[in-house]
Amino acid sequence: MSGLGYTLVARLETSPELYASGQIIEAVSGAGCVIMGMDVVGAEHTSVTLDVTCLTTNDDEGAGMRSALEALDGCTVSNISDTTFLIHLGGKLEVRSKVPLKTRDDLARAYTPGVARICLAIHEDPALARHLTIKRNTVAVVTDGSAILGLGDLGPEAAMPVMEGKAALFKRFADIDAWPIALDTQDVDEIVRAVELIAPGFGGINLEDIAAPRCFEVERRLREKLTIPVFHDDQHGTAVVVLAALLNSARLVGKKFEDLRVVMTGAGAAGAAVAHLLLVSGISDIILFDSKGPLYVGRGRLDPEREALAARTNPRMHSGTLSEAMAQADVFIGLSRPDMITADDVAAMADHAIVFALANPDPEIDPVLAAQHATVVATGRSDYPNQINNVLAFPGIFRGLLDTGSYVITDDMLIAAAHAIAGAVSEGALSGAYVVPSVFDASVAPAVASALAHASLQGRTAGAGASAR
Amino acid sequence: MSGLGYTLVARLETSPELYASGQIIEAVSGAGCVIMGMDVVGAEHTSVTLDVTCLTTNDDEGAGMRSALEALDGCTVSNISDTTFLIHLGGKLEVRSKVPLKTRDDLARAYTPGVARICLAIHEDPALARHLTIKRNTVAVVTDGSAILGLGDLGPEAAMPVMEGKAALFKRFADIDAWPIALDTQDVDEIVRAVELIAPGFGGINLEDIAAPRCFEVERRLREKLTIPVFHDDQHGTAVVVLAALLNSARLVGKKFEDLRVVMTGAGAAGAAVAHLLLVSGISDIILFDSKGPLYVGRGRLDPEREALAARTNPRMHSGTLSEAMAQADVFIGLSRPDMITADDVAAMADHAIVFALANPDPEIDPVLAAQHATVVATGRSDYPNQINNVLAFPGIFRGLLDTGSYVITDDMLIAAAHAIAGAVSEGALSGAYVVPSVFDASVAPAVASALAHASLQGRTAGAGASAR
Repeated sequence: MSGLGYTLVARLETSPELYASGQIIEAVSGAGCVIMGMDVVGAEHTSVTLDVTCLTTNDDEGAGMRSALEALDGCTVSNISDTTFLIHLGGKLEVRSKVPLKTRDDLARAYTPGVARICLAIHEDPALARHLTIKRNTVAVVTDGSAILGLGDLGPEAAMPVMEGKAALFKRFADIDAWPIALDTQDVDEIVRAVELIAPGFGGINLEDIAAPRCFEVERRLREKLTIPVFHDDQHGTAVVVLAALLNSARLVGKKFEDLRVVMTGAGAAGAAVAHLLLVSGISDIILFDSKGPLYVGRGRLDPEREALAARTNPRMHSGTLSEAMAQADVFIGLSRPDMITADDVAAMADHAIVFALANPDPEIDPVLAAQHATVVATGRSDYPNQINNVLAFPGIFRGLLDTGSYVITDDMLIAAAHAIAGAVSEGALSGAYVVPSVFDASVAPAVASALAHASLQGRTAGAGASAR
Repeated sequence: MSGLGYTLVARLETSPELYASGQIIEAVSGAGCVIMGMDVVGAEHTSVTLDVTCLTTNDDEGAGMRSALEALDGCTVSNISDTTFLIHLGGKLEVRSKVPLKTRDDLARAYTPGVARICLAIHEDPALARHLTIKRNTVAVVTDGSAILGLGDLGPEAAMPVMEGKAALFKRFADIDAWPIALDTQDVDEIVRAVELIAPGFGGINLEDIAAPRCFEVERRLREKLTIPVFHDDQHGTAVVVLAALLNSARLVGKKFEDLRVVMTGAGAAGAAVAHLLLVSGISDIILFDSKGPLYVGRGRLDPEREALAARTNPRMHSGTLSEAMAQADVFIGLSRPDMITADDVAAMADHAIVFALANPDPEIDPVLAAQHATVVATGRSDYPNQINNVLAFPGIFRGLLDTGSYVITDDMLIAAAHAIAGAVSEGALSGAYVVPSVFDASVAPAVASALAHASLQGRTAGAGASAR
């Protein structure tokens, strides 16, 4: 599979004749790049300065384009810029004041001396912090840099672009003011303590790209300590969107949700959370594979997390291969690595098979191959149908949490969120290529927020609801 | 002295007759409030809904107004709102995305999959974090809530309105994206470690309202550990603006700066930093009083900070009273408590006395009284001439630090900043009522940034420059 495209802009000095000859187009196309436009940015009698904007899918093509252009007689490449790098210059976030600071009067209200009365009011009644400070609408996006996208342990500085992007999505989809906190430690105690210490100024903690099994303990301990919601998006966000997609898929193929036979690969943060949410949603026949094979009671060499998962899954005690497990399975969910399953594996599944191949950027199976035998195919990618994207979940989930002031996140709340996402695909629109709404569907986040708030209030009224994970 | 004014809005139901009678105006004025306007927000045949906006200086007047209005026949007070509280609803800051997130293409560049290439680039070359993330332009405004304004230890939640205001000022005066971090600890080790852990995402640390002597150690240890600038504004910001005002004051009264005899009250964070900056600027005759008397070598019961200050100040070994020290002093600088000195003390100073009475909100002496005997009087208040306000310093200082990528802050850099602030008052404009520029003088922050950057580069070239404090 090819990677997703990105845009390069090559600035050239060329002769008018060469520009007119079409050789530039040939050189660029010959290198595998797709020309999107050529703009003259300067012209003199004997030379033209040209910006060639083109689409490429990998760095080699860009290098190839440079060589091909430089090989042309009368063509000099000044530089090739990558628009993805250009938009990142200076970072992606800014802080703005919501209050004017033009006059002395403004200053006296927003800062000294007026602000002193606000401080004293909060000191007397700490609950006022949710009304008179940013706490009500802020989320810290916290990482230790240990599991950045599918790239692994890149450290805190290199994690920032993802965290900034996440914060931008919070604003875009739920009007939440999120701030990235990239921690210079991967020690559980230190992560927990640092988050605890910075918590007073935030209304919620979104843990992000923290490696398993560390992420489980960090989340569990923070939930015990803090009175603001703590949510590891890689776990629960993924689980909510997978559940939403599976609810719609089962509806589409006319199978009873609880009876689905599910095979999963990947028992990391996301895999464990997905398995848990499917279990509490009523599915019992789940076989979960990690890199050493299927989890089952007594397999040995299991950490406590996997030991617990083994006890709750695999009721038929399958101990064979992945291919054997796939036979007659209704659902495959991959949260692991590229090329884990084959077209034959999919062909051996039950009729109307459902395949979620979510490894990024390269799925467990080429979705085009999978679609030859499966009724529903979903990936994590934006260039195929049915993108399982956490952005469908986390903005609405935190909107609901902040609006209700809830810091307990129950399974019921996550299930309600999944139903809200699933409900954004109307009965008439539902198809094998459309089991989850578009990330740009503006109805999703408010629906999720509202469903979550409702479930939260119900849970509080009932005084019940087990905490998620 | 009265406090500074703030605005109340009283919403009333009244009869048209009462509204017309003028009794409402009488009641409000009688309670000591100043009417700024009355707005009819609804009117029926027999009743008028009225918003009365008025200025008050204390809560008692507001309560008095309510009683006076309710005592009127046919008048009901629905509620009295305080505009300072109203503008704080929901907090004062928001986060915005600097990149568009409208199309799939936007999303693919700012978030996955495009962002992965940015992360990898930073992972390979960490210096790129300053170009491709928000690090270049962000400052964490960090407090432990222990010395909030003049109010003392209010804790982290109640500190947030000040930190948010500070962040808003950073944006307003230097286009810096600052984010408040209110720490839930007052333990030095924990403060230091927490700041260290969150540092990767920030380009600078502004310590704020941390009590002495803790603030000294926190700053010193963070400066040793971090490669981003660390600046305790209550110390160095204050010191820079005081030095600026004193440079101009000496110029105005025609005294040689180095020869000034200075008496100071207050040996906390600000007092210690001011004394230090005056010493390294060439003044040697400084007598510094704490609550137990003047600092001198051998006084006893001095913590290490004060012991060091005692060794560097008080060359004439004054061990008497404050009044005795004031006799023939050229300068008084108060960073302590209200009513520390009397008009007689000021009268006993040398000719053309300079009095900076900076305790907030109530100065060491009523500035009107002080002005009867002193040539220059400055306070921390905005309702008297010569407000010594840190906002003249910290935005430009951090702008200069971020722009040069410098993390060493030397005395020379602070002195350069002070000269830049002083220089914003032209020779012709200089007077006893105008020794520091207005906080709204837009030329100040760029001048400070530029002076600081220049001094930083000079320092680096010279390979010298002792670190400030």
